[in-house]
Amino acid sequence: MLLMSFYNSINAQTIKSPNKDLTLKFEVNNQGIAVYQLEYKGKSVIKPSKLGLEIKDVPSFMEGFVVSNTEQKTVDASWDPIMGEQKTIKNNYTELLVELKQPEVANRLLKIRFRLFNDGLGFRYEFPKQPNLNYFIIKEEHTEFQLAGNHKIFWIPGDYDTNEYAYTTSKITEIPGLMEKATIFINSQSPIKNIAIQTPSMMKTEDGLYINIHEAALVNYPAMSLNVDAKTFKMSSHLTPDAVGNKGYMQTNTQSPWRTIVVSDKATEILASKLILNLNEPTKYKDVSWIKPMKYIGVWWEYFVAGKSTWAYGTETNVKLDQDFSKLTPNGKHGATNERVREYIDFASKHGFDAVLVEGWNIGWEDWIGNWKENVFDFVTPYPDFDVEALRDYAASKNVRIMMHHETSASATNYERRLDRAFQFMKDNNYNAVKTGYVGKIIPRGEHHDGQWMVNHFIHVAERAADYKVMINSHEAVRPTGLNRTYPNLIAQESARGTEFEAMGGLTPEHTTILPFTRLMGGPMDFTPGIFQTDLTYYNTGGNQRVNTTLTKQLAYYITMYSPLQMAADIPSNYERFPDAFQFIKDVALDWDNSYILEAEPGDYITIARKAKGKNEWFVGGITDENSRTSKIDFSYLPKGKKYIATIYADAKDASWNNNPQAYTVKKLMITSRSKLKQFIAPGGGFAISIKEK
Amino acid sequence: MLLMSFYNSINAQTIKSPNKDLTLKFEVNNQGIAVYQLEYKGKSVIKPSKLGLEIKDVPSFMEGFVVSNTEQKTVDASWDPIMGEQKTIKNNYTELLVELKQPEVANRLLKIRFRLFNDGLGFRYEFPKQPNLNYFIIKEEHTEFQLAGNHKIFWIPGDYDTNEYAYTTSKITEIPGLMEKATIFINSQSPIKNIAIQTPSMMKTEDGLYINIHEAALVNYPAMSLNVDAKTFKMSSHLTPDAVGNKGYMQTNTQSPWRTIVVSDKATEILASKLILNLNEPTKYKDVSWIKPMKYIGVWWEYFVAGKSTWAYGTETNVKLDQDFSKLTPNGKHGATNERVREYIDFASKHGFDAVLVEGWNIGWEDWIGNWKENVFDFVTPYPDFDVEALRDYAASKNVRIMMHHETSASATNYERRLDRAFQFMKDNNYNAVKTGYVGKIIPRGEHHDGQWMVNHFIHVAERAADYKVMINSHEAVRPTGLNRTYPNLIAQESARGTEFEAMGGLTPEHTTILPFTRLMGGPMDFTPGIFQTDLTYYNTGGNQRVNTTLTKQLAYYITMYSPLQMAADIPSNYERFPDAFQFIKDVALDWDNSYILEAEPGDYITIARKAKGKNEWFVGGITDENSRTSKIDFSYLPKGKKYIATIYADAKDASWNNNPQAYTVKKLMITSRSKLKQFIAPGGGFAISIKEK
Repeated sequence: MLLMSFYNSINAQTIKSPNKDLTLKFEVNNQGIAVYQLEYKGKSVIKPSKLGLEIKDVPSFMEGFVVSNTEQKTVDASWDPIMGEQKTIKNNYTELLVELKQPEVANRLLKIRFRLFNDGLGFRYEFPKQPNLNYFIIKEEHTEFQLAGNHKIFWIPGDYDTNEYAYTTSKITEIPGLMEKATIFINSQSPIKNIAIQTPSMMKTEDGLYINIHEAALVNYPAMSLNVDAKTFKMSSHLTPDAVGNKGYMQTNTQSPWRTIVVSDKATEILASKLILNLNEPTKYKDVSWIKPMKYIGVWWEYFVAGKSTWAYGTETNVKLDQDFSKLTPNGKHGATNERVREYIDFASKHGFDAVLVEGWNIGWEDWIGNWKENVFDFVTPYPDFDVEALRDYAASKNVRIMMHHETSASATNYERRLDRAFQFMKDNNYNAVKTGYVGKIIPRGEHHDGQWMVNHFIHVAERAADYKVMINSHEAVRPTGLNRTYPNLIAQESARGTEFEAMGGLTPEHTTILPFTRLMGGPMDFTPGIFQTDLTYYNTGGNQRVNTTLTKQLAYYITMYSPLQMAADIPSNYERFPDAFQFIKDVALDWDNSYILEAEPGDYITIARKAKGKNEWFVGGITDENSRTSKIDFSYLPKGKKYIATIYADAKDASWNNNPQAYTVKKLMITSRSKLKQFIAPGGGFAISIKEK
Repeated sequence: MLLMSFYNSINAQTIKSPNKDLTLKFEVNNQGIAVYQLEYKGKSVIKPSKLGLEIKDVPSFMEGFVVSNTEQKTVDASWDPIMGEQKTIKNNYTELLVELKQPEVANRLLKIRFRLFNDGLGFRYEFPKQPNLNYFIIKEEHTEFQLAGNHKIFWIPGDYDTNEYAYTTSKITEIPGLMEKATIFINSQSPIKNIAIQTPSMMKTEDGLYINIHEAALVNYPAMSLNVDAKTFKMSSHLTPDAVGNKGYMQTNTQSPWRTIVVSDKATEILASKLILNLNEPTKYKDVSWIKPMKYIGVWWEYFVAGKSTWAYGTETNVKLDQDFSKLTPNGKHGATNERVREYIDFASKHGFDAVLVEGWNIGWEDWIGNWKENVFDFVTPYPDFDVEALRDYAASKNVRIMMHHETSASATNYERRLDRAFQFMKDNNYNAVKTGYVGKIIPRGEHHDGQWMVNHFIHVAERAADYKVMINSHEAVRPTGLNRTYPNLIAQESARGTEFEAMGGLTPEHTTILPFTRLMGGPMDFTPGIFQTDLTYYNTGGNQRVNTTLTKQLAYYITMYSPLQMAADIPSNYERFPDAFQFIKDVALDWDNSYILEAEPGDYITIARKAKGKNEWFVGGITDENSRTSKIDFSYLPKGKKYIATIYADAKDASWNNNPQAYTVKKLMITSRSKLKQFIAPGGGFAISIKEK
């Protein structure tokens, strides 16, 4: 009896967030199973939910636990990111560390660490060094998220290889019925066979709570999707398997990523949350002076819409890297020519861009896609009409960088074996940033974009790049989990349905009101905004497509879609047609002292204001979905007692995404910190404001 | 009718070998199936056997063929290998190229090229560039070898991951019944589920024909095993699958490896055959001056038998590469210490060895095996008691090289991503050769040692090594197929059950009479002979093991087991105890002007004489199995009219492998080209002779 009461007392623990809004309860129940629950202001966020992992060939970390020790502490600190939405990030939480033992399995040890912030919970499994366990293989992680009701949810299908789905908004109970329709075709997809969705998963309860489930610090572990039990509203972890069906190769003295639950009764607080960044480790890079925000243009959009140029140089459909590409028959439409790149460099230089992305510069594009081909690209050999040295020197003379492009065709093995040489080539030729791509089925064959091996690959590439002081902008990589804190040269990534899909069927007008609540919870996105010529029939290439926004909504994205890397994605000649609107892209900052989430509702609208880092300049962006609305803009974050000139880029009254997208106005207003503005936004529209001291 | 007779004429082709001993018949039969057969001096070697490949998702290359063209030619040429058993190799064959078309599959094209030598046949599939096929995936190759009878066969079980089985000698019909017993435990094995054996497969017919089936030029294709239909004596190709079960990713304008059938009525002619080398491509390396024979010793055998030293430095069983290994608890038995390596360098220098292999020099050995761990070794960080720079300088001062050791633990991905750095480290520290190792389950997980991906890996490593002028001695790699002609820095490899197994249960006395007819058909073996202290109880480490040879049989191996890389594998102190016998190892050449296979019978005995390259020195080696015998040695290859001193290292009359292995005699004899010698060989014994001009 004495023993029982001892275990009872240590076996149940409760902690509260620093501001007391959140309550976490943990216990090991009488079956020896670890269970947690989470409340926000007295409302249940997560009802009692089990924790544990299923292990291959040996007993699992699922039951038979006793609590051998617990520790609690409170941390109240702050740190300054190298780049970010804020100059300083507050890191304030209550921590509970539970040390579990399995007396019947050779006293095997498992720890669970909870960090309860004012805006949510993070917890992870820790596998300490211990006498009787060194290596093990995870069959599945069984972390449960027992939700309290049939919430509204913004979701995309669980998939091991792509995050590029469009979002579906539904009740949890509706997910199974909508899954087939939601699983649209994506190049190289591996939808999960049971009903599962991806994280970040954004939910709203009937009583107005916003709940976001994701993960932080995904290192040496597969990405997590969520199995959905639509009847009981229970979600549970579903890890990405490897080529032989295993889900994680573990060596003790390690840990899982953090499982994160951001929660608030204000949608704006979800977007303001820095919980995920806080759960990532500080960088170990000693010199970070080479990591900088970048604004860039690129030989890119014309490949998607204009039909006038191609990545490939030759007409062949069967090429090998060891052949002489100068002997191919030129297709006459190659984009990355010396002449074209010089034009882009001139434009970038004239308008103050840092860099010009050039895709299609290197040999191999003739048959790069869809063949599960390993030696697709060599990353060092240009096409015959792209003169690396001459363009390097020309760009340098114009004070512009060329941004390297490493499409891998998902052949990660090929990339890894050439990586040192590829980065040395970049260094030799004055490149300081690379856009990587992973279109297709992964090699090693059988691996997935979101599996442990590829998770490690992406980090390996970041670390190797750091050796050469190279920044990475990854596309088709596993979605981010705040690792840009630890590997700050991961300046941005795609990992979602971005602007390119505007040229392949279009994004819904609400899509970009959801992304900041989902994909961007993990980190900056290279969304590639800035399309001014939204009606793509303009190019007379036979399509009947459009970018589903107004022109000024494209401007708003530079604020609403946070990234220290921003592209002006349209073709330069389109900017020359709208110089007044283009001025905003030229002016907008990339790095911030502070950010203010003014209004937000997932699926409906977002308005954000940001102060440029180290400058008395502010920028505001607001977007809506397919419905017009009036945004109420507050300027109270401006220093008091001064006057400011606000330049307002707004939809004209008769604008709309599908009818009159290029109808906009540019007006200047005098404002102060006490000003308030009601700003009309057209259907599918947005506005942007730049603010300077008078 | 006219058309039929046209197709008939072109559809059946016959060619003969230059000396007319061999006849190949090819036809496309009335089902459109390609069939070949082979005769030797009127005896059937291969009865009519089908050719073809099964392709995934699209129609196969199996049937519906018509012959669209044929070409014949005769080649009579010769070439000089960089190193080898002969200064000049004759390349003389009759070629038949058959161009096949599949009229009902979009006129798809397949070529089959046959080369008929005086000592056998090689043929391969060629997949030309063509309008309607660029990429395809092989489900299986269905090449048949319909043998003419129930031959005697020397075989090891088919396995995707290891060649290190002991040989079984049986009739073909007995293979299924013996398979389970033959499939002994090997670290990391993947026995083929159906009845299959490995190549090189050595057979002897009841009427005295010797037949050897293997492959040549295995590049970008999985290794082939042979399915055995024991009832019909039909063998058929069985390719090694990848992680998802596919067997080859092909891009047209490519070809399969050559399937080889060496045949003779003399066993000696099998060993003398250069057919496999002839079917490999000449090297493309421009500078080969850095590729040289090597005789080496190593910190190695003591790890296996003496029990006095270990690869690992620490007592830990759970290490990570980023930890500080100097903080481990030393186990007190680490082999690769500065002191020990200096002793080996001194010994090598004193006795004229080129190099000292040092295993266990680098961090990671504490838990390197059996954990399917990816980041096992980094190949550049020494243990705290191994001073890279100091030992580099010490070795250089003694005119000796240290041989690098790269055990990968089969984590090929980890090796590839570190390869450039590992080789640069070697270059910086004066290493010119590396022993690589692939013990364990392959990473990429699900791949196999013998699959297409790993086949390409081994070649990739060779090519990268060549960039740094590094020679490779691979262990646990896919068995060789003559690629040392194309990649001459692949100077030797293991890929069979070698001397290390003498310390792990022992090799049978017949084992080394079989290896030259099997494993060595593909290329030089780093068998690591030279064990003088064969009774391992000598070390008082508790074992009751022995090396199953006499001492002089170990000397004979330097001749019977061809390799330009030869180790004196025993511990130096053992050589100091037998200086007269050791003299042979010091004297023996590594590269040859010519070789003479004097006597041979697989499973029984082999006697070979060789002339040192560029020197008037000859060396003879002879071995037997468990039976004593008298070898009749011919010296007719010596220049006539001169007198020579032959130093004969022979078993004493009372010697035997299991009783009195160190009983030997060293005698000198005066001989001429007309001399003949009857030389006694003890059970499990051998002899060696060195011959110099008087």
